[in-house]
This record gives sequence, C-alpha cells and structure tokens, in this order.
Amino acid sequence: MSTERFEMCLPDLLVEQIVADALAEDLGGAGDLTTNATVPAQARASGVIAARKAGVVAGLQLADAAFQMLGPEVDFDIAIPDGGSVAPGGVIAHVDGSARALLTAERTALNFLGHLSGIATLTRAYVDKVKGTRAKIVDTRKTTPGLRALEKYAVRAGGGFNHRQGLFDAILIKDNHIVAAGGVGRALAQARAHASHMVKIEVEVTSLEELDEALAYEPDAILLDNMSVAMLKTAVEKAHGKALLEASGGVNLDTVRAIAETGVDMISVGALTHSAPVLDIGLDFEPTAKDKSA
Amino acid sequence: MSTERFEMCLPDLLVEQIVADALAEDLGGAGDLTTNATVPAQARASGVIAARKAGVVAGLQLADAAFQMLGPEVDFDIAIPDGGSVAPGGVIAHVDGSARALLTAERTALNFLGHLSGIATLTRAYVDKVKGTRAKIVDTRKTTPGLRALEKYAVRAGGGFNHRQGLFDAILIKDNHIVAAGGVGRALAQARAHASHMVKIEVEVTSLEELDEALAYEPDAILLDNMSVAMLKTAVEKAHGKALLEASGGVNLDTVRAIAETGVDMISVGALTHSAPVLDIGLDFEPTAKDKSA
Amino acid sequence: MSTERFEMCLPDLLVEQIVADALAEDLGGAGDLTTNATVPAQARASGVIAARKAGVVAGLQLADAAFQMLGPEVDFDIAIPDGGSVAPGGVIAHVDGSARALLTAERTALNFLGHLSGIATLTRAYVDKVKGTRAKIVDTRKTTPGLRALEKYAVRAGGGFNHRQGLFDAILIKDNHIVAAGGVGRALAQARAHASHMVKIEVEVTSLEELDEALAYEPDAILLDNMSVAMLKTAVEKAHGKALLEASGGVNLDTVRAIAETGVDMISVGALTHSAPVLDIGLDFEPTAKDKSA
Amino acid sequence: MSTERFEMCLPDLLVEQIVADALAEDLGGAGDLTTNATVPAQARASGVIAARKAGVVAGLQLADAAFQMLGPEVDFDIAIPDGGSVAPGGVIAHVDGSARALLTAERTALNFLGHLSGIATLTRAYVDKVKGTRAKIVDTRKTTPGLRALEKYAVRAGGGFNHRQGLFDAILIKDNHIVAAGGVGRALAQARAHASHMVKIEVEVTSLEELDEALAYEPDAILLDNMSVAMLKTAVEKAHGKALLEASGGVNLDTVRAIAETGVDMISVGALTHSAPVLDIGLDFEPTAKDKSA
Amino acid sequence: MSTERFEMCLPDLLVEQIVADALAEDLGGAGDLTTNATVPAQARASGVIAARKAGVVAGLQLADAAFQMLGPEVDFDIAIPDGGSVAPGGVIAHVDGSARALLTAERTALNFLGHLSGIATLTRAYVDKVKGTRAKIVDTRKTTPGLRALEKYAVRAGGGFNHRQGLFDAILIKDNHIVAAGGVGRALAQARAHASHMVKIEVEVTSLEELDEALAYEPDAILLDNMSVAMLKTAVEKAHGKALLEASGGVNLDTVRAIAETGVDMISVGALTHSAPVLDIGLDFEPTAKDKSA
Amino acid sequence: MSTERFEMCLPDLLVEQIVADALAEDLGGAGDLTTNATVPAQARASGVIAARKAGVVAGLQLADAAFQMLGPEVDFDIAIPDGGSVAPGGVIAHVDGSARALLTAERTALNFLGHLSGIATLTRAYVDKVKGTRAKIVDTRKTTPGLRALEKYAVRAGGGFNHRQGLFDAILIKDNHIVAAGGVGRALAQARAHASHMVKIEVEVTSLEELDEALAYEPDAILLDNMSVAMLKTAVEKAHGKALLEASGGVNLDTVRAIAETGVDMISVGALTHSAPVLDIGLDFEPTAKDKSA
Repeated sequence: MSTERFEMCLPDLLVEQIVADALAEDLGGAGDLTTNATVPAQARASGVIAARKAGVVAGLQLADAAFQMLGPEVDFDIAIPDGGSVAPGGVIAHVDGSARALLTAERTALNFLGHLSGIATLTRAYVDKVKGTRAKIVDTRKTTPGLRALEKYAVRAGGGFNHRQGLFDAILIKDNHIVAAGGVGRALAQARAHASHMVKIEVEVTSLEELDEALAYEPDAILLDNMSVAMLKTAVEKAHGKALLEASGGVNLDTVRAIAETGVDMISVGALTHSAPVLDIGLDFEPTAKDKSA
Repeated sequence: MSTERFEMCLPDLLVEQIVADALAEDLGGAGDLTTNATVPAQARASGVIAARKAGVVAGLQLADAAFQMLGPEVDFDIAIPDGGSVAPGGVIAHVDGSARALLTAERTALNFLGHLSGIATLTRAYVDKVKGTRAKIVDTRKTTPGLRALEKYAVRAGGGFNHRQGLFDAILIKDNHIVAAGGVGRALAQARAHASHMVKIEVEVTSLEELDEALAYEPDAILLDNMSVAMLKTAVEKAHGKALLEASGGVNLDTVRAIAETGVDMISVGALTHSAPVLDIGLDFEPTAKDKSA
Repeated sequence: MSTERFEMCLPDLLVEQIVADALAEDLGGAGDLTTNATVPAQARASGVIAARKAGVVAGLQLADAAFQMLGPEVDFDIAIPDGGSVAPGGVIAHVDGSARALLTAERTALNFLGHLSGIATLTRAYVDKVKGTRAKIVDTRKTTPGLRALEKYAVRAGGGFNHRQGLFDAILIKDNHIVAAGGVGRALAQARAHASHMVKIEVEVTSLEELDEALAYEPDAILLDNMSVAMLKTAVEKAHGKALLEASGGVNLDTVRAIAETGVDMISVGALTHSAPVLDIGLDFEPTAKDKSA
Repeated sequence: MSTERFEMCLPDLLVEQIVADALAEDLGGAGDLTTNATVPAQARASGVIAARKAGVVAGLQLADAAFQMLGPEVDFDIAIPDGGSVAPGGVIAHVDGSARALLTAERTALNFLGHLSGIATLTRAYVDKVKGTRAKIVDTRKTTPGLRALEKYAVRAGGGFNHRQGLFDAILIKDNHIVAAGGVGRALAQARAHASHMVKIEVEVTSLEELDEALAYEPDAILLDNMSVAMLKTAVEKAHGKALLEASGGVNLDTVRAIAETGVDMISVGALTHSAPVLDIGLDFEPTAKDKSA
Repeated sequence: MSTERFEMCLPDLLVEQIVADALAEDLGGAGDLTTNATVPAQARASGVIAARKAGVVAGLQLADAAFQMLGPEVDFDIAIPDGGSVAPGGVIAHVDGSARALLTAERTALNFLGHLSGIATLTRAYVDKVKGTRAKIVDTRKTTPGLRALEKYAVRAGGGFNHRQGLFDAILIKDNHIVAAGGVGRALAQARAHASHMVKIEVEVTSLEELDEALAYEPDAILLDNMSVAMLKTAVEKAHGKALLEASGGVNLDTVRAIAETGVDMISVGALTHSAPVLDIGLDFEPTAKDKSA
Repeated sequence: MSTERFEMCLPDLLVEQIVADALAEDLGGAGDLTTNATVPAQARASGVIAARKAGVVAGLQLADAAFQMLGPEVDFDIAIPDGGSVAPGGVIAHVDGSARALLTAERTALNFLGHLSGIATLTRAYVDKVKGTRAKIVDTRKTTPGLRALEKYAVRAGGGFNHRQGLFDAILIKDNHIVAAGGVGRALAQARAHASHMVKIEVEVTSLEELDEALAYEPDAILLDNMSVAMLKTAVEKAHGKALLEASGGVNLDTVRAIAETGVDMISVGALTHSAPVLDIGLDFEPTAKDKSA
C-alpha cells in the first residue's frame, strides 16, 4: 500500500504487521464461520463508516489496511482525515467491495478506529482546555502493550505531543535512579557521560529544593512530580529560561487549565492512552438491491 | 516458566510472546538509557506492587513474565491472586532482584497489570449489579487489537463470561448476513449446514417478529439487539426454555440491573474491553540501606 | 491476493504465511540452484496440473499462492475446484508464466495439493460409505503439526465435518479429566461453570453406565469410545434426542457402514488426517516451441 | 534444553520453534478449556508413552520439548531412543509432572511422535527389504510443508538416507531444465559453471541414450526415471564406477527388492514422507492414588 | 515483486524479509521524523544512484525492494546490473517517485548496496589477480550474522565462488573433529557413513603426511591449511586428479597470485566477507523545478 | 540469561533473537553435519577465545548467547570484558562444555565477536587520535542492515558515542529536506512544530552562510558537511556556545586530529560501522586427554 494518501501517517510496514496480527487474532485457522456460510464469495457490498458521537478521527490507515488485506480491491474513500473532527452521525469514510471482505474485516477495522479516535478525542479535550497557554499536552509510556506507536500517533492526531517513545530514545531520571546513583547531581552527570549528543535528558523532582539542585546541572527538561499549583508557579519562576518544565500528576480535565496557567511548558497525562474510552464508530451497510425491492 | 503457580491462567507461550513484544517496544535497540547510565549492573532492589485505588486484580502472570525476562532470578511473590479484590493501598505482590531488571521492566509490567485489572474491575462492577438474577455479564469482540485473549481472561477474572473468541469458534448471524443469505431462515439453515457439531449458533434479532422467526429454527442463542426492557421481558416469555437470550445495546451500570431482571441469560457489554479505565497500580521501591542510614 | 475466486476458502493471511514458510524451507538462502543455472530469467512456460489417480481436489488456494509468490504474473486457471472429483489423468488447473517461477514453486505447490487432496479423497471414501445414514464423518485433533487448519479444510472439501479445532474452542472431557475432577458429574459441572455460552461440551464414555451418568448432566454431545456395534445401538436408544452421539475407535472403511447404521450422529476418524496417502498429482509442462519443431 | 541426551538429533532451536507453533495451534488464545476447568493447577500425574503396534521410534526430542514447554519440571525418561524398534505395547518413554502440562501437551507430543515414527517405520520396512544389496533407500522433496527437516530426520532414524534437503543444497537437473537449457550437455555445463565445489550434480534420464549422453559429462549421480528392472540392469553395467545411480518411480515394498538387485546405488521413495501412515502411539496415564483406593 | 528483471538473483521472499527488517530498524515506531515534518506527502522526486569510486555492483534487488516497500509506485531503472563494473561517478540506477519514499528508504537502500558492492569489488580484485590459473576464489563462513546468503551472492557477483553455505549442506572435517573421531581415517569413515549421496566431504590437513592419510580415504576436497607455497606445490603434485585442493590461510592480494600458481583448485578468502570496505555509493537527487527556477 | 554479568550491555531479548537467527542461518534444518557425524553427544571440550592481533573487545554477550543456546550448561568465563584492550594472543574468554555445542556454535560466536571487536578497535583508534580535544567520535546510520544496535554498542565499547539510532529518535535535516521545505528556516520551523520536547534537532549546512542562517533558528546541533579545516575553525568561532557542531566528510585516521583541533564537538565517521575490518579472534581448543597421551 502507498502512504501517499496520508499526510499524517504511521510507518506502513508497522501498520501492515499490526493489522495482520489483529486479523489473525479474529480469524484463527477456520476463518469467519458466519460469513463464509451465509455470504457468497462474489457478493459485493458498500457502506459508510460513521461516528455515533462527536470526536476526533484517528486510525484510518489501519482501517484501510484491514479491508485491503481481506479484499485487495476494496475502495476506501476518506471523508474526514485523521485529526479531523467528526460530528455525531458524521461520515468518516465510504467502503465498497467484496461483501465477505467488508463483513469479515469490519470489527478489526472498527476496533482500531474506535480505540485510536477515542485517544485523539480525549487528547483534543485536554488541548482545548489549555488553549492560549504555553502548555503542550503530552503523553506518557502508560500505553497499551503492543500499540504504543499507534497510540502516540493518535495523541498527535488529537493535537497533543509525544513524550519519549520508550526507554531507548531519551533519558528520564526518576527517584529510584537518583537513589541508585547517589543523588541528583551524580545521576545527571552519569547520564550526560553516557548520552549521545542527540539524546535529551529530563529529571524528575518532587520539591523546590530538588528543582534547584537539578537546575544546577542544566538538564533539557525537568518533570515536576505531583506539585500543587502554587509550587508549580514558584518552579516556573525559578526555572524560567533554564529548562523546559513538565507538570505531572493529578491532572484531569478539571485541573488542567489551572496547571497550564502556571506557565509550565508541558503537562503529561497518562489517561490519554491508558483510560480513554472508545469513540463509538460503526459501519452501516447500504441496503442491497434485493433489500430495496422489498 | 511454570504455570503451576496460577490456578487461573493464560497459555504461557502466548504470555511470553506478548510480553517479549511489549518489552521490545519499550527497549528498542538501545535499551534503557537511563537505568544503564545510573544503576550498577549488580545493584539489587525490592519493592511492592500496590493498588492506588480499590479494584480487582488481573494480569499477574504477565507482570511476572516481564520481570523474569529481564532478570531470571527476580522473586515475584503474589499477595492477591488474579480475581482477588484489592483495597486502596493494598499490596498485590512483592518483587525482589536485580535493580536494573526491576526498573527497566516496571512500566511494562504495570501497563499489563493496570490495563487488565481495569477490565476486571469494571467487569466486577457489572457482575455485582446483577447479583441474584440469572444474567451473566459477557464480553464482545470489541477488544484492543492484539490483546483479545488477555482481555477476555481479565473479564473472567472479574467474574464475567466470555462470548465467542473470534470469528472462528462460533457463529453469530447479524443483520447483514441475514440480508445476504435471504432471510433468517435461510441464514440459519446455511449456518447449520456448514457448522461443526461443536460450534454453537446465535442469531441477532431486532424485533419480536424476528424473534419468532428465529425460534422456529432452534438456534442455541438469540441476541436481542437494542430492545427496551419491556420488549426484553416479552422476548423472555416467548423464548423460555427454547434458546439462550442475550441482551445487547444500551447497557451501562445504571441500566444493567433492570435489563438483568427481565430474565435474559446474558448481557453483553462492549465497554468491558473497549472503555475500561486503567486500575491505578504502582511499584514502590523499598528504601535502600543507603537511604535508611540517612 | 483476493479470495473472491474461492467459494470455499481458508483465511488468506494464513495461506500466505504457510506457503511463504514452505517456499523458504525449499529455497533456503541460495535459492533454486538448478533452475537459476539452467533456465533464463525471461523464459516462460505453461503446463497442466493433473491427477494421476482418481480423487477429490483440495488445496488450490495454496498451490496458487505458491506460484504467485515466485511469479506475481503467473496465471492459475482452475478447472476443478476444491471439493470436486477428478478422474485419473484429469486436469485440475492450467498454469502459465515465468518458467523459473513455475519450476521453482512446482514441488511446494504439489506437496500442498497432493497432501490435502489425499485427505479429501480419503474423507470422501468414508462419506460415500455412510451415505443414507444420519452419520457425519468428522475429523480429530490427530493432525500434522502446523497444518491443522489446512487439513480440517480438506476434510470439509471431502464432505466431512470438523470436530473441535483445538483445545480452545470446545470442551471434550476424557477419562483423565474425569479422574482428576472426581467423577463424570463433577467434571461436567466444573466444565459448565467455566464455559462460555458459545462453547459446546462433550464427554467421553466407555460403558452404558457411564452413558447414563453423563446423560443426567445434559452435555451437548457424548463420545462413545471403542464400543461394539451392539453397544452403540443400545446407546443410541438410550440417548435418543438427549445428546448428539459420536462413535470413535475401531473405525475403518470396512467397519464404518455398520457403525453408521447404529444411528450415531457422528463417526470420528483419526486416519483422515494422520494416515491419508497423498493423491498423486503432477505438473506436466507443455512442450516448448523448440521441442515441437523436433 | 540440552541436546546432550540425544546422540541423534535435530537442531534444538528448530525443534523449539516448531513445537511452540504446534502448541500454539492447539491452544489458541484461550488455552485448554477442558483441562483448566477440571484439573487443579497443582495436580500431578505420570504415565507411559507406548506403541500400540510394532514400529521404529522417531521424534522423542519433539515430544520432550512439547511437555517441557508447558511444564518445565516434567520428567521425560526415554526407554527406546529414536531409531530403536518397539514391539506392540512397548514402552517408549515415561513422563511425570504437572497433570495439566501432561494433559495439555499430550496430543501435540503424540502427533509428532506418531507422524515421525510412522515415517521411520515405513523407511525401515524398505531398508529391510533391500538388505544385502548395495542400494540405499533415500527420500525425496515430497515432504509435508513445514516439516521437511523433521521428516528427513525420521528417514535417517529408520535407516534410510536423505536426498538433497531442498533446491538450495544440490543440483538435480530434470527434463524441463534440460529442455530450457537446450540439451543434457548444455544443462550439465551450465550447472557446473555455476556450482560451488561443494555442491553435487545429479541429472535425470529416461532412456539409455540419455544415460550415455549424461555419462559423457561426468555428473556425480544419475537418476534413472521410471525404468524397468531390465533397463536398470543395463544402466548399471554402463555406468559402473562412473556415477552413482538412483532408481526412481514405481517403487513399492513389492518391487523394491528386484530394483535393488539391479545394482543401483540408491532407490528413492516418495511414499516415505508423503504417504506413511502414523505409528499408533498413546499416552497411558497411571491410575492416581484416588483411583487405586477405589 | 517479480524477479524476472534479475538474471542473477536472490530468493525474493528472503529479500523482502531482510529489507523489511532493515527498514523497521531505521523507522522504529515513529517513522522518519525529519521527512514527515518537512516533505509533503504528495511531493515527488527523482535522482541517480551513483558510485563515488570504481567497483563492482551487487545488491540492486535489495535497493529496489527498499524503495518499493515505502513507495510501491517508485520507478527503479537499472543502468548497471549486479556483477557489472562501475567507474567513479558512474550511474548505477535511476529512481523516481514519492519524495518521502525516496528520502526515507535512501539510507537502507544504500547500506545494502554499498556493503554488497564492497564485497563484490574486493572479490573481483582477487579474481583478477588469479586470472589464467585454475584457481577459483571462494568465500568462507566468516560472514556477517544474518546476511550470509546476501554476502555469498555478492561474492558470486564479483566472480568468486561459494564454499558451503553453512554447517548443514556439506561436510568439512577440521582438526577438532579429527581429534574427537580418533584420526583422519575414522573421521572420514564416520562422515561417509552418515552423509547423503548429495553431500560433499572435505577434510582439512596441515601437513603432507596428513594429506597422504586423507587421500587414502578419497574425500571430494582437501583444505590445505596455512601451507607455504612450496608445500602447496608438493601437495598439488601428490593429489593431482584425486581430490580438489583448497588453499587457505595467509591469503591477501599480494600473496594470492603465487598461491594460485601452485595449481590449487580453490583459494578461500575470509576477508571477502568479513573485512571488505563499503563501496561508496550515493543517491543524488535531481534539482526540483522550484530549485531550477532559482 | 541474566545480564547482571555485563555492566555494559545490549537488551538481552534483542541479543537472543539475533543470535538465534544467526545460528539458524548456519544450522539450517539438517544441523552440523560434520560435528554430528564425528563427535559423540556426550563428549566435552574446553578452549580459549583469543585475539590474534591487538584490539578492543566487543560482543561477549553475543558469543556467550551463541554457546548457551546450543549448550545451556556451557561455562563462559570472561577474561577481558567488552571495552577492554587485548594484546596479540591475549585470552578474551574461556569456554568449557559440550564438545558438540562448542564446535557448532564456534563460528557464529566468533563472527559476532570479530565483527563487533573490529568496530570497537577502529573506533578506539579514532578516539585515541583526538585525545585531549573536545571532539567526540560519533557513528552514523551507515550500518550493516539488521545489526545497527549491535554496531552502535560496539562504537560505545570502543569509546565513541552514538549519533541518532535511526530516523525515529531525532531530527537531522539534510539538503533535500531543506529544498522540499523551502529553505533552512522553514525546514527548522516545521521540524520544531512537529517535534516532541524530547527530540533534538540537527541541521546540515555546507557553507558559512548556511551556518549563519541555521544559527538564527537555534537548532541543538549543526552538521558541517565536508568543510575544510579552515572553514571548520571559522564555524566554531561563529557558533561558539550556540549549538553543538559536528564535522562530517573526509574524515580518516590521518585527517581526524586536525579536524578535532578546530574545536568541533563531534566528528562523525561512517567507516566505523561500514568499513571496519574484522578483529581476528579464534577459539583454540585444549588438547584432550587422548591427545595428551599421544
């Protein structure tokens, strides 16, 4: 498949692998017992993928791949691209092709689309709350095992930003690392000694004293863990222009605006990826000729 | 690893594959940059896995595997087994072993545990609501791609029951199959003609007329789609002793009791697997000797 | 590849994986030393896939995939579809395309086709023997490791029916489970307590006393293990209308008719998948122009 | 696992991969529904693996691996090693360990053991028939897809020899290669020009004229395709000391002795791997204490 | 992809697997951050793949696959096929297609092409040195893990020949095998007893006495380990017409001619695959319209 | 396997996967024909892994894994850890265990060790050359496909530093990106708009004008492409304290010192991973008792 259709996209080889695994999970060795028994191989169908509720779309590339893998000739026409807003009842895409392929791939396609759109929708809600502040909404490593790249993509589709992708691409020094290293300073020094010049270093602090200690070692960013709004304000004053500041802990849709107004640069929200409810999206098949004549 | 420790368990080969993939996702090629830079290879640590909120535990086998894969000598002692209830702050397990292994595997272990315990916890909430009725709470195929077997296991840990595992193990005839086959009767006849004697057949109906039509063909179960409580009651009267009845659609914690009291046999809830928030579970490291002396 | 050409089919992703593995097994890293040395890359060839003996065809989807993977432009025209009968010398399919692709894929394509057609042919022989009785011929889990889904498909192509696919989709309680559970009753009760409403339960009995005991617990099916024809008749009388009855053990082409005439619902035959000889099928290349001029 | 226990063995990494795939095929995502419902996790069991009929054992390494993967502590004590003869009722191995592991792995272990022992047994029958002649019984590439290395191992266990492993390790020029290359001489010349010095070259001939033509090019071996015993004798006289001769086609247990007595070096038998019936092998669990007291 | 374009080729399934893995290694889960941020999805580009230095081309099939996998519509036109010589600045291929696909696949394509062309170039240097002698330049098993089939292909592209592919396709008895077996004779006898008739046998000797001992057992080839040119000459005289002789050890571009002139049949050179420097090959994008107008 | 033995280490799951693939490549389906024919299963052996030339060790974890996978009981005692220097003849490790396991794994273990130690050795040579300057030696993405993580590890073992791991973890804007984006400024602005706060941004410039233009946008680092030493000095003066500077192009052991003395922060050297010759390392088996008595 070509990714030229997708301005915003995931690596296609990754998409194909994950979608193939998801289809295999649903098909097993025996395939779709129901569809194979009741729908002729040559039957064709068409339908619309529509949202039942308002939200932000994410995951079309995966839905497309699911249909393509079972029916290479399936047309998948996108009405609202990833990152776009959909109203209740809004049509996201049209599908047309082999009835067996559409019916068999339907649930897999919708599972991806609903899950990722759910994340994009929740992210957008946070992003809207902090509009006008300098704060970016960022995700965490609290993702669903096996789907991190997809979920981080959905956060971007929702207008959020990604934190590090994993343990391998950036350094985030937490309390236990500090204890093991023998203090903030030694931990930061050791991190710097090992790190590539292309790797950023962030350190977690829980008090203003630790913040001062950390600032002395010039990390790229500092995670302010579970601080009150008042403390966050003081931290912003202290760190102004010296390091990026990330607020973390106790963040929800009610508290996020006040946190953003403290002037922090990022607010990380684990719930974006670990607790976003699905966006309810369905595939409505169009009545067939036979149906219409009835 | 031996599964003798787990009365209730997932296939171990599946667990190992999924956990290895999840660790690979977090470690990439470069590994845990932070821990490798700040924690000596021989350092040891111990800690407790504890719930921040009340819930039902599920996924210990996966957490155990995550630690074992990075530190074969890690002790993982279970305090509350899968299916058990944990109070806020309650200890679920103790871990002890290589500090690097514990720190590097921590997030992967917790991601599995939090996600699956979240599902078990939500399932238990539904199960508690229908206590005393004949209704079982059952899941759907609206699961997270790649994790279906785990999520269905978590539903069982929460006291729920599984619907079919995929398209391959049971027949569920929906509206589009009926249209393609040319009616409920023909669809059921075709399904029966193809089905193994070990495969159950369920059919979806949306009206009492369709229910009557379906009952004439003696399916094992009938899915009553989006019916009102009043309709469900009538359906139960009609179908009494003839087929298992499953209520589906419009189910939430507020409505489930009334639905259960209609006398249906199963109530299916997609939210169990597509919208359960994580159960907040953390790993608290114990202060090290150095710490204590401070 | 599209599966629209195949009314009866296996999941295409599964087919592609298994065929790719089989080709890799034959090609190694160095490829087809003989063909690459002796046949030019641009040479083309055509031929017919023909049976040397009478039988039932199964596995065309796999043969097609083998040729397609090495030569995407290969034409594969089916003369007798899966499930069809072929006479000695009968043409099953025509192939046309890259000579290298045809020669290199030939053995892999034929190995699938011969093995699966062998199973379909033996199944048909049993099915023909029991014609006119209520008995269905069913397979077992005694399949070739890695090829179960294909072999069970071949049984269907031959007119047989599948028993459960594996340990995961249905419950079959055998003697050792009964001993471990503490009796037929307890075993059936435990099975029912755990089972999904979409999972069928069968129990194995070896005597008429055990049959009575089992019937009291209303299993979906009962396997009558190694019973004489006389016992089977009594069992059928006892169980009439209460549970499906499966005869197992001592079944061969000489005994199967008498067993079927007892009135059992299914007769399971392990030999279908563990001992069916190959159906001898070859690929006859058409003489090339050069040849013809000779 | 260590292969030190096996004088004759398959690569252990290959064994582990194939056995893991076979177990996954049987377990799916839900595992052994029956055993998990009826057998406690801590229950232990023991039993003997015994042959129901006489034959030659092959595949113990795979059976061992199947049990080990589900129960790392399972004891697997070999009574008759691969290549050994077993009488009807003869004990091949003793197993002892987790009851769940033994019951769940049983069928997979026996499927490998029965299939490979069936091949070894049929091979031994051919080998015994040609005893005293110079002819070796060799296999072909007509193997079960995915299991070639195992099946060729079983042929060796039965006293046979392997032909080439695949298209990659030796050159076998057949009729179509000869046509494409423009004659036996050109085909052999092209093969030699490309071949590694470690690769042997064999050519197929169908007449004595072709044999003469082939001998002029000094191949390592010549396959005499479907020749009568008389022709084979003449061929042996012609080729004496010049090339190894392989008889192929029309070989069965009735004809093989006469073919061997022509003086050919090898007789290839496709049936060894494509049509060997299973050797009937079972796992008999020992009565438990509870049982004994009854 | 079709391999019809490549007279000399690697198995396509192998190429696709290795290229997919290499792309995944470079893309991770997040993809090409730079290109996705700066290049529009619909932008197109074209360019030439050109050598910075003189050499022999190898690996076009892999470069082609890398571009195809990210941009199925990319044109890849070959100017100099594998095995061809390229002058400094010489154009090897033209590419045209999606700008994102070209930029993202560029490094992976060039890494394959540079590495394999490096091997082909070094091989050609050795081959040119021994021109006119009977000696073939052959490779060893000292290859880069995971890339052996590709590297051995590159040796062939450079005009060299392959030694055995691995431990599985030919027998090479070394000193430790001889010690374990109890002498050259016993080792050769054991090898012959186990070997397929399609497997060649080579033995390593370090002295003329061992050579005599080996010749008595008629191996297919004898490896003369680290012998002086004088000793090699004597060895050639002794072994004339009895076994192929391979010189090994102390071979470099300065010594290889003298070694070849001793009359040995093969000279094995580990450096071909373990120490060949890359051939410097780059992808020069053509100025875009926008550029040109500037 | 536990990684506690390795202060400096690669992710163990990655090591196991890559080593298993490398062993499979060497073993095929038939295994080590030579060793299995000549060495008894119970034979034991021991030996030393020793360098033939001076160098820096890297890759012991992989060599260890290769032996462990074929002989779980093999002792692997490290004398010189990764990153340590070895003199000609110096012993790197002792091995002791199953003779078959040692002989069969030998080449795979040495291929990893020689390749990675070759890279570490070349890296160390560059690092030594620039001692006393501020310049770090860094690698590139010009790595062997499939082995990047290992090769970057070897660079670290040699005292070098890693550049970005792939396209996914950092942004490096090159000429074609600049053209596509419409200038340095727009490219940097687009990169910043998309980038995570944990992702660094580097831009390539080829002139001092471009350097000025880039500095205005405050990238984390600037790659100075193919500049003369004089230009590099000027660049260092201009950029002092504003961005890290990387020199690239025309770097070799003769030129690297002068480049380092310009004051650049990093010097990237593609040759570290694409053209490092192997470090010659062998496994010398100790004479066995039988040998000694001779």
